[in-house]
Amino acid sequence: MSNLLRKGRLSSARRDVVKFTSSALIDKKILKHIIEINKAHVLMLVECNILSKDYGCKILKALSNLHGSIKLFSNMEDGHMVVEEKIIEATGQDIGGNLNLAKSRNDQVTTAIRMELREEIIRLIETLVDLQEKMLHLANKHLFTIVPGYTHLQPAQPITFAHYIVAQFDALQRTILRLQETFDNVNLCPMGACALATTSFPINRERVSELLGFNEVLENSVDAVTARDFLLEVMAELTILAVDVTRFVEDLEIWSTMEFGIVELPDGFASTSSIMPQKKNPDILEVIRARISLVLGNYTGSATVLMSLPSTYNMDFQEITPKLWQSIDTVDDCLSMLAKIVSNLIIKSIALDKHSLSFLSATELANLLVRNYEIPFRTSHRIVGIIVKRLLEDGKSFRDLTVELVSEVAKQVLGHYIPLKAKEISNIMDLSRIVESYNVKGGPAPEEVKRMMKARFETISKTETWISEKKNKLSMAYRRLENCITEILSSC
Amino acid sequence: MSNLLRKGRLSSARRDVVKFTSSALIDKKILKHIIEINKAHVLMLVECNILSKDYGCKILKALSNLHGSIKLFSNMEDGHMVVEEKIIEATGQDIGGNLNLAKSRNDQVTTAIRMELREEIIRLIETLVDLQEKMLHLANKHLFTIVPGYTHLQPAQPITFAHYIVAQFDALQRTILRLQETFDNVNLCPMGACALATTSFPINRERVSELLGFNEVLENSVDAVTARDFLLEVMAELTILAVDVTRFVEDLEIWSTMEFGIVELPDGFASTSSIMPQKKNPDILEVIRARISLVLGNYTGSATVLMSLPSTYNMDFQEITPKLWQSIDTVDDCLSMLAKIVSNLIIKSIALDKHSLSFLSATELANLLVRNYEIPFRTSHRIVGIIVKRLLEDGKSFRDLTVELVSEVAKQVLGHYIPLKAKEISNIMDLSRIVESYNVKGGPAPEEVKRMMKARFETISKTETWISEKKNKLSMAYRRLENCITEILSSC
Amino acid sequence: MSNLLRKGRLSSARRDVVKFTSSALIDKKILKHIIEINKAHVLMLVECNILSKDYGCKILKALSNLHGSIKLFSNMEDGHMVVEEKIIEATGQDIGGNLNLAKSRNDQVTTAIRMELREEIIRLIETLVDLQEKMLHLANKHLFTIVPGYTHLQPAQPITFAHYIVAQFDALQRTILRLQETFDNVNLCPMGACALATTSFPINRERVSELLGFNEVLENSVDAVTARDFLLEVMAELTILAVDVTRFVEDLEIWSTMEFGIVELPDGFASTSSIMPQKKNPDILEVIRARISLVLGNYTGSATVLMSLPSTYNMDFQEITPKLWQSIDTVDDCLSMLAKIVSNLIIKSIALDKHSLSFLSATELANLLVRNYEIPFRTSHRIVGIIVKRLLEDGKSFRDLTVELVSEVAKQVLGHYIPLKAKEISNIMDLSRIVESYNVKGGPAPEEVKRMMKARFETISKTETWISEKKNKLSMAYRRLENCITEILSSC
Amino acid sequence: MSNLLRKGRLSSARRDVVKFTSSALIDKKILKHIIEINKAHVLMLVECNILSKDYGCKILKALSNLHGSIKLFSNMEDGHMVVEEKIIEATGQDIGGNLNLAKSRNDQVTTAIRMELREEIIRLIETLVDLQEKMLHLANKHLFTIVPGYTHLQPAQPITFAHYIVAQFDALQRTILRLQETFDNVNLCPMGACALATTSFPINRERVSELLGFNEVLENSVDAVTARDFLLEVMAELTILAVDVTRFVEDLEIWSTMEFGIVELPDGFASTSSIMPQKKNPDILEVIRARISLVLGNYTGSATVLMSLPSTYNMDFQEITPKLWQSIDTVDDCLSMLAKIVSNLIIKSIALDKHSLSFLSATELANLLVRNYEIPFRTSHRIVGIIVKRLLEDGKSFRDLTVELVSEVAKQVLGHYIPLKAKEISNIMDLSRIVESYNVKGGPAPEEVKRMMKARFETISKTETWISEKKNKLSMAYRRLENCITEILSSC
Repeated sequence: MSNLLRKGRLSSARRDVVKFTSSALIDKKILKHIIEINKAHVLMLVECNILSKDYGCKILKALSNLHGSIKLFSNMEDGHMVVEEKIIEATGQDIGGNLNLAKSRNDQVTTAIRMELREEIIRLIETLVDLQEKMLHLANKHLFTIVPGYTHLQPAQPITFAHYIVAQFDALQRTILRLQETFDNVNLCPMGACALATTSFPINRERVSELLGFNEVLENSVDAVTARDFLLEVMAELTILAVDVTRFVEDLEIWSTMEFGIVELPDGFASTSSIMPQKKNPDILEVIRARISLVLGNYTGSATVLMSLPSTYNMDFQEITPKLWQSIDTVDDCLSMLAKIVSNLIIKSIALDKHSLSFLSATELANLLVRNYEIPFRTSHRIVGIIVKRLLEDGKSFRDLTVELVSEVAKQVLGHYIPLKAKEISNIMDLSRIVESYNVKGGPAPEEVKRMMKARFETISKTETWISEKKNKLSMAYRRLENCITEILSSC
Repeated sequence: MSNLLRKGRLSSARRDVVKFTSSALIDKKILKHIIEINKAHVLMLVECNILSKDYGCKILKALSNLHGSIKLFSNMEDGHMVVEEKIIEATGQDIGGNLNLAKSRNDQVTTAIRMELREEIIRLIETLVDLQEKMLHLANKHLFTIVPGYTHLQPAQPITFAHYIVAQFDALQRTILRLQETFDNVNLCPMGACALATTSFPINRERVSELLGFNEVLENSVDAVTARDFLLEVMAELTILAVDVTRFVEDLEIWSTMEFGIVELPDGFASTSSIMPQKKNPDILEVIRARISLVLGNYTGSATVLMSLPSTYNMDFQEITPKLWQSIDTVDDCLSMLAKIVSNLIIKSIALDKHSLSFLSATELANLLVRNYEIPFRTSHRIVGIIVKRLLEDGKSFRDLTVELVSEVAKQVLGHYIPLKAKEISNIMDLSRIVESYNVKGGPAPEEVKRMMKARFETISKTETWISEKKNKLSMAYRRLENCITEILSSC
Repeated sequence: MSNLLRKGRLSSARRDVVKFTSSALIDKKILKHIIEINKAHVLMLVECNILSKDYGCKILKALSNLHGSIKLFSNMEDGHMVVEEKIIEATGQDIGGNLNLAKSRNDQVTTAIRMELREEIIRLIETLVDLQEKMLHLANKHLFTIVPGYTHLQPAQPITFAHYIVAQFDALQRTILRLQETFDNVNLCPMGACALATTSFPINRERVSELLGFNEVLENSVDAVTARDFLLEVMAELTILAVDVTRFVEDLEIWSTMEFGIVELPDGFASTSSIMPQKKNPDILEVIRARISLVLGNYTGSATVLMSLPSTYNMDFQEITPKLWQSIDTVDDCLSMLAKIVSNLIIKSIALDKHSLSFLSATELANLLVRNYEIPFRTSHRIVGIIVKRLLEDGKSFRDLTVELVSEVAKQVLGHYIPLKAKEISNIMDLSRIVESYNVKGGPAPEEVKRMMKARFETISKTETWISEKKNKLSMAYRRLENCITEILSSC
Repeated sequence: MSNLLRKGRLSSARRDVVKFTSSALIDKKILKHIIEINKAHVLMLVECNILSKDYGCKILKALSNLHGSIKLFSNMEDGHMVVEEKIIEATGQDIGGNLNLAKSRNDQVTTAIRMELREEIIRLIETLVDLQEKMLHLANKHLFTIVPGYTHLQPAQPITFAHYIVAQFDALQRTILRLQETFDNVNLCPMGACALATTSFPINRERVSELLGFNEVLENSVDAVTARDFLLEVMAELTILAVDVTRFVEDLEIWSTMEFGIVELPDGFASTSSIMPQKKNPDILEVIRARISLVLGNYTGSATVLMSLPSTYNMDFQEITPKLWQSIDTVDDCLSMLAKIVSNLIIKSIALDKHSLSFLSATELANLLVRNYEIPFRTSHRIVGIIVKRLLEDGKSFRDLTVELVSEVAKQVLGHYIPLKAKEISNIMDLSRIVESYNVKGGPAPEEVKRMMKARFETISKTETWISEKKNKLSMAYRRLENCITEILSSC
């Protein structure tokens, strides 16, 4: 428990209060950034002649030696004070007592969170792109694998498994785009805002920003210490991503029932019951579904905390940061596990002629009546509707469709027979043929899906380029900072 | 990683999948209850002649020896399987292999959560009643301490600090009542529901329920394994409690500003700034305010997970239990810290004649005009409104009120002067006198607040009686269970 | 736009501001209660000699004549001021100007909301009990209708449709109990708290409370105008109810797929597609599922608004009341529609011998091995697991089980054959027989479900008694109030 | 109630079911877009030779005549069917029965929502930029107006009102940027996806997209009908904006208390009490604060509805669209009212020498000791802390600071006196001087704020350019569509 700040205005703190308000354990996540910020700040102070080179060098050397020597416990106030204490310990109060000159915890903590968060965003995008890649490889094997497309969980029209997977891919891609845009809002430097009003020392905010690899200074100083929108932005995007992931997982959950039987998890991914020996439960899907949904609670809770808070720093901020890290870790874990499932998923060969799926051809019968017999669509829609009803009432499937039945119903609706051919009917019973005919942009026709997949492999390449550029920029900045320190230390 | 369930229907599990879906770490919280349930279940199996006495005794002995020997790690499936494994290890498969006869993890886990939760509810009520007691002791010292009552944060009418505290007390009391009602909904026994359909063995559900200290069996077996409303109910109540606590804390936050200056935290509860040496920040209040608000996120997240899940057990359930425990711990911690603050809070003597507070007398001037001069209330309200406006426009306070001013404005509004006396004005300037006159039921008059406080000390006694009754009932049940086991073991 | 309050302290209001902050349209819902409160209040003022009988009678007469003459528009401040204006209009300022003596909008509005809410709670319980009744009538027809019980959406064990329905019934019953308890927290009278500090006039709060049919006065005056927990409590309970309703609806949605085929909606409840003529979509289920889920958003939003508000009245309160009424209406509508669905639901006769459902017998094979061959349960569980695996690998169902297969696997696991009889196998293939054997308390055996249903018909009676008692109490109170007024008017 | 779809597969619908599931009233908002989409679709069908020019022209003429003739009532299924019905009515089933050829409500509804939403986003940005402009004009008047900067609601350091306003401006600007990015995600065309699988007719999706002013086709057809992320994205951004707005409003609420007295609302924006004649309540701020907070509930509710839904269209979607429109309207109203408040806000001249504010100079005393006397910052921080403590204990303010006191405390801490000059003390008592010295990038120094404001006026211009470009692009597209129709009609 530090008393660094407690021998002036306030008498000593209570242990229980310090423990209750401590952010030390949370600060583990940002400790290395706190040290980097201190380095850049001191370097700037020396460059701007605010701190003597002699003092600056001693502090920088002490900061460089800190690595690994700091342990954070819940009886410490926070990571910021621990670093300052260690430096004063190492250099004496006369020198180290200047570490916090022209800065405050208010600007330092949000800067450190932003530094960690930009790395986490990159990590998330890496995980997403890895999942996308595995999805495309799975899709690649199923360009011609017909699966029923459902709406309202009722059989609708045939598509292919590859086409379905591309849809899930595209949803994830929009999250990647959002996260990339957010990266730029995160990567702004609040340092120099100090408590809320900057300082009367002639500091150079741009220099610190550059040394720490930021794009720009976050300008207005009141805004700089107040803003937590960057954090909500990320959490909101994870919520939207959760919607996309739970949709994919829900599809798999339903499709892996014995009744739907479209996919199956390998044994290694399934569980059984402690009482019912026959069970093969898709627990893993349910855990992903629930766990990732909980990021909505984190977002709601965090937004509630921020709502109606007055401007500038309030300790309330401290309580939402852990929710941010937790949401990111949860999402990252779930995506990684989902990638493994995707790589191992069993697509079952469906009996496409089974009763329920036979009706996937119905729309094509309606289209055929329009195309070949100039029946208006709404009329042909009704004719087919009546046919379906009759078949079902007779306990039959669409496979039992006959030229006679169509003609008879057409007569009833139109007043005249139509000269339908058996060949026409057998054509529309061929689901592969139907899928091939859905050959407009974005449709399930294998040729079109192939084209889309090629484009998406290129999208993956682009994302990977973005990732390595951002990573390079950051590691170069950190290297540059170390070089500047080495240089100045060598001249002391 | 247990393979107890993996040598039949499914080939072995993947380590990463087990780790991802494991509830072992969460199950630490309910491990002792899992063991108690197993004891009661086996005892009942023997009593019902479903399991031989010989086997039953061996299992019961092994269960009794388990205590402390179980360590749960994230590579284990869950606490239930670990216990079964340990018993099989100790007694052999032929005997221990019957531990799970006529039960399932589905009924066992919800039973164990209910057992833990009923204890947690008692603990929460203990913490609440402790806070209430400290509040009444604080109030006791301030029966005559006038504080401004605000509405919309604008000075309204004078009350006393004791009266204010009783209001906060009453809000907490409603949470206690809600938790007590919820206790009864929690304290129902699902055991015997098995997976979802009970069993073909002639088990005795009432016996297990009684042995485990439950009020009753949770009857319908599908409902028994499905229901998670008891858990949402508690979390919802904590959310409502959070509203009450944040209100109290927000009052303290605003009242401890230099501008309001009504209360002050002792130094030991405050923090200073790393840059601004004059600061005395009520960090502790902000941490409570934010931390307890986050239970809303836990509730929202958990309700989202449960929404639209199909009936019976889904693994999604597993993900919300930790949110329940977390919410309870958070609330309990915040209430405990608040109790300490209440015990140490400094109530500052307010300069009641200060400008802003002088207007607290305005309503009484209006009432006086009604009472003594038969002016209708809406008219006297207008007269006083005009007076206030004039005083403010002249930079004056309500202390500057004169007989002349009132009379002049009355003339303007009514068309005639009123013979107001100086004594009447000085009377309504006396805030203590006003407070004394608010002597209707529930009002701030010291006499009435005294009466209310006496009643609330009795309320506390009643709550304490409830607590000890519930604790006794549970400890008696556990003792009875142990006695039954001792007895049967002694006869083996 | 009223200027009743605007000729004193404040100059006149802006039209746009009044429209923005107006609660007039929302107040339509509580207008009749505002009038009743004014009646009771004036009656009490006369009884307590605070207002002359003459004035009181004139105001009461005017209040009695108000009925239907008030129209609320968005350019009015609120319902309270409109009533006061009308009374002043009818009786003159000298008389009507006393209507608001010793009361405030702060106590009046929360009293009026509580009066409306207690009626809405009764209405909700009526709707719930109507749904319950329809559920029991449906269940009654399906005591012997076997349906597969699922866990994790995988076939688990056989139950009956009646048993399933009783589970849903019981979940609804817990909401009824919660609402009944909440009724008592709602039915408390804040009147007399005035702005926040009661009044210096010697009012009688108990009398007003009694005249308005409340159980008791809500005592502490600061608490009385601050408390909004009663409103959150109702909204939280609706959220929990939404979880229960969406679960039932989700079951129906999945069971009405062509693949599961357990239930079907009559045509009148289904929709078709504008493009796919074969579709029969359960739109109605999806609308209920989504619409009722939205009450969670109402709760979250309202709790967020209340979090960290300072004590006493804030205008923020006004914004959450519409969310309360909206949530109640939404839930009531969804429950009513669900009741119609329940009354018309088609339960399809399932081919119980179909592949996927054959495995519902597996647990009973395990139990049989325990029961008849003294194999420990965990071992028999493994044996059956291996059998299931083999059958599935061979593309067979549990119907293909043979004495030989069991014996062979038993030998493999146990080291010896078991003398299983064909009769034993055919017995466990009979799902009706299995269901009958699940004859423990709360189980699906028809006899037991019959017993449970009888008890639940009694539960319905009890709820109906509660409803009529509450309704009687309220209508008697309203009648008494009118009688008191008639009496006093006749003596004027 | 339309039976257009009900004479085939399904018998007629129930009135109550249609009313319950109807989206007709909601569809009012998108009706004009439904018509535009039908026009573009039919035009494309003719251009692609899927529909004869003759039929196409007749339908287009009927569509052009529709304007204003459609009334939507709750007994109609939805806007889509009403339009189709009207067209069939006008042109006969043989012609109009082809309106829905190669499209579905699934693609049509999401296209229409996107068309409306892109306009709403533009409108929101217009409202935001109007508020920003008013903020800058207010700031312009207060470049030199000192206000206390607070952290944790405790006086921290002096800033200017202009500097404060720029902070709020910048927060709003980030919402504008987010909305602009979102515009591009919204402005994608799903048409041609049909039910989920495109169609076997050779449609041209790019053409429809272009005719309707979209940037691009939303490619994958399953994704096109499933995606609702665009809607959540907007709602999430409104939630973040709500945090920013409530922060600004909360500042104003606290600053307009009599105790803080920094700002005041003009009478026209304030309300009084019905009982307390002196009250001037900032109701309007509280209504904004609460009302805009409720968008969080809308977001949470909507995300909950979408979570774990299966792919493609579900009727659940219909229930969240009204929440989107409601959130936008709420935010737009609140921002407009806030703009009026900003234009009329009274900034009060603060007595900067008042007790509480005198301590705003404390940090500068610490800085001075560092700067002029080479005392390390942490030591000078402690010296000033002790001085503040002593002054407060003696009931004094920072104005009572003397050379002697500083020197004495310095001696105590450092062991030696420091030769402080009276001039140095008087300098740091001058808050304007301090503010001028905070002259680093983003600081409150008037010169720097002036520079920032100039830049922000340019930002406004840029946003306005964006707005007019987008508006032009859309109106040109609509004009082009009309021209194409005119052209084709003239050639019929």
